[in-house]
Amino acid sequence: MDLEGCLVPEIWIRLAAQTGIDELKVTTRDIKDYDELMSYRLGILDKHKIGMTQLRTAIESIGPLEGALEYTQWVRERFPFIILSDTFYEFADPLMKQLERPTLLCHQLEIDANDRIVGYHLRTVDGKAHAVRSLQDNGFRVISIGDSYNDVTMLKQADQGILFHAPDNVIEEFPQFPACTNYEELKAQISKAAQAPQS
Amino acid sequence: MDLEGCLVPEIWIRLAAQTGIDELKVTTRDIKDYDELMSYRLGILDKHKIGMTQLRTAIESIGPLEGALEYTQWVRERFPFIILSDTFYEFADPLMKQLERPTLLCHQLEIDANDRIVGYHLRTVDGKAHAVRSLQDNGFRVISIGDSYNDVTMLKQADQGILFHAPDNVIEEFPQFPACTNYEELKAQISKAAQAPQS
Repeated sequence: MDLEGCLVPEIWIRLAAQTGIDELKVTTRDIKDYDELMSYRLGILDKHKIGMTQLRTAIESIGPLEGALEYTQWVRERFPFIILSDTFYEFADPLMKQLERPTLLCHQLEIDANDRIVGYHLRTVDGKAHAVRSLQDNGFRVISIGDSYNDVTMLKQADQGILFHAPDNVIEEFPQFPACTNYEELKAQISKAAQAPQS
Repeated sequence: MDLEGCLVPEIWIRLAAQTGIDELKVTTRDIKDYDELMSYRLGILDKHKIGMTQLRTAIESIGPLEGALEYTQWVRERFPFIILSDTFYEFADPLMKQLERPTLLCHQLEIDANDRIVGYHLRTVDGKAHAVRSLQDNGFRVISIGDSYNDVTMLKQADQGILFHAPDNVIEEFPQFPACTNYEELKAQISKAAQAPQS
């Protein structure tokens, strides 16, 4: 399952609001290349002298989406659950704590002794679809859940893809995926997909 | 990380003690083939009319090893954590609850409407080493932790293998792996391996 938009708010958008730095609102819609986008964002943080400790405090106060904790508890009682995200462990950590430490696979920041974010390591390219393929290769049927364009390869790769909190244009463009707007609907779709006969 | 012997007791040994059925003490030392061993065990349960509900209650009372919960909390604050086991979700479930629902990848039982265990599905062969290879293929350096012969392929595949609670003969046969006997030593070995320069 994807993280931002699905279990927690969009972290950068909320950081922009909290810090009042409008430049942090820039997304993949403005800068397509994720690598370039991240370099831009880290440059902005550096310019405003925002270090990891301040960021961590801000992210802590964001918290998961309402109902996300109860939903993940439900899933984790029934299935192996892995969160696949393009965020960074250091950003997501306060939110993972609030979600009772599910397994998260994402990317890693490099932070220096002065609390400054000096770089980042992307684990792999198209990491979400790659991880789904690997799980299938390990004998699992996979249900993938995401909200946006960067989840589509993972939804297509999965045995069942489900859109959650997706914008209308994504829902219209990919009618093959059921689209849910709340956790109760999502749980029903997951149960249905899990009970489907194996192909 | 392996489950039985590392985070929870050997489930079948404890079940044999609790139920007083000595035939359940048979292990991979007696019957090498895991498939054959499982068929034998399920036959014994069936003969004694022990269903899933009774088993679940027995397993609940076993509980994790002392210190296992605190240890897994420590790991999960620092690294993505996955348990790789040859047990079954239905057996492990009460123990996973007590360990605050870490991600477990193992095998699946088939239980009929009368609570009888009628079969099982092995997810994949040599599942532990396969899963480690997949994680590496997804850009991770992997630390594998296990206690016995059936963990050795996973320890060899990992970037760093660590023996935990291993019997003397295993420690002697595989001197390339550091061997730990308590969670404090294990945490120190994990920290050391995580800080090692990337090859």
